[in-house]
Amino acid sequence: MKIAVLGTGMVGRAIAGQLSTLGHDVLIGTRDVEQTRARTESDLLGNVPFAQWQQAHPAVRLVPFADAGAHGEVIVKATQGATTLSALDAVGAENLSGKVLLDIAMPLDLSQGMPPTLTVANTDSLAEQIQRAFPETRVVKSLNIMPADIMVDPSRIPGEYNVFVAGEDADAKETVKALLREVGWPDGAILDLGGIRSARGAEMYGVLIFTVSAALDTNDFNLAIVCK
Amino acid sequence: MKIAVLGTGMVGRAIAGQLSTLGHDVLIGTRDVEQTRARTESDLLGNVPFAQWQQAHPAVRLVPFADAGAHGEVIVKATQGATTLSALDAVGAENLSGKVLLDIAMPLDLSQGMPPTLTVANTDSLAEQIQRAFPETRVVKSLNIMPADIMVDPSRIPGEYNVFVAGEDADAKETVKALLREVGWPDGAILDLGGIRSARGAEMYGVLIFTVSAALDTNDFNLAIVCK
Repeated sequence: MKIAVLGTGMVGRAIAGQLSTLGHDVLIGTRDVEQTRARTESDLLGNVPFAQWQQAHPAVRLVPFADAGAHGEVIVKATQGATTLSALDAVGAENLSGKVLLDIAMPLDLSQGMPPTLTVANTDSLAEQIQRAFPETRVVKSLNIMPADIMVDPSRIPGEYNVFVAGEDADAKETVKALLREVGWPDGAILDLGGIRSARGAEMYGVLIFTVSAALDTNDFNLAIVCK
Repeated sequence: MKIAVLGTGMVGRAIAGQLSTLGHDVLIGTRDVEQTRARTESDLLGNVPFAQWQQAHPAVRLVPFADAGAHGEVIVKATQGATTLSALDAVGAENLSGKVLLDIAMPLDLSQGMPPTLTVANTDSLAEQIQRAFPETRVVKSLNIMPADIMVDPSRIPGEYNVFVAGEDADAKETVKALLREVGWPDGAILDLGGIRSARGAEMYGVLIFTVSAALDTNDFNLAIVCK
């Protein structure tokens, strides 16, 4: 499948690398290709410069946002939550129309330190904002509740766990569920929450993640809904 | 232990009934004793009138909020989230000073239908509002993430699950943890999230509960944090 991953950070790399390894035709989109390639230092989280990462993933080409959008049948939005709408404007509504847009972002506001607050919550969500701004795009929210290394390899955490999907378009959700199964999510772990409004619950759970992470001093955990 | 439960609804009854059965000296507080006793019809959720419930739990006396507050060493706030501060004003700051206040409420706004939004979220929480309004009270948030029948009998749901506690006062949290163990929460299931601000994550998770409940068409589930 032709897939565009928007965002060159840790999350975008993890998703693009794994989907490429699985045989998909993956491009990574960024705002300024030359600037992204020119970086020579690791970021604050210790991630190596993009150019160094790409040497290990030569099949994944780096292109401007709009080119990535034109390429992708599925577009994975892995940019920071707060810059989502401007990144999608750069991709262009014409490149997003009719496409499946998998939104995996948490709309974090880190300006007041940790744990973060959200830039949108409670009566709205980032996924709903995207769907309103791009009504011809089939937005699906998923995967936002965990670190990138678990997104693409859920077996890192033994035991039972769940991943949510939310969106208005049933076919788009099936496409996303198929990708989830490909990277290792068992069918029974995938919980369809309903329409795009149900992304609110999944996004708001993001705050609990950071709280639990601080309490346990680890990011290596996952969420399970344990039924009777 | 002398315990006051504020609130005569399903949640207050479940907690008061169970703690009384375990041998604690439990009173239930309400705004207007005569009005509560005079009800003869079941509520919209099918709960029998309070007077009928009390016949099965004669040891649990119904008293005005202030009398309940004066009685309790631990005060369990099981009123609706939205009316919390006015209920606590009726209890009286002098009856709350120095006491352990266990806040189990979700600050739900049901005015726009289901799933609910929250009356406070993201940059503040109900538990923080209570702690600010009653600085001499030792507020602990816990149990808000599940239905009342699971709060007082977690073994209803087989498998692993977690319950959170959050609050500023370590001794108050120990008192609450001891009560949680008494009603059946395994020690390993109790996860201390930290100070009262960490109640935000637990309260915001409340929205996800309603979303999952609608998706699965059941309330009989619990949350587990699955670690590596």
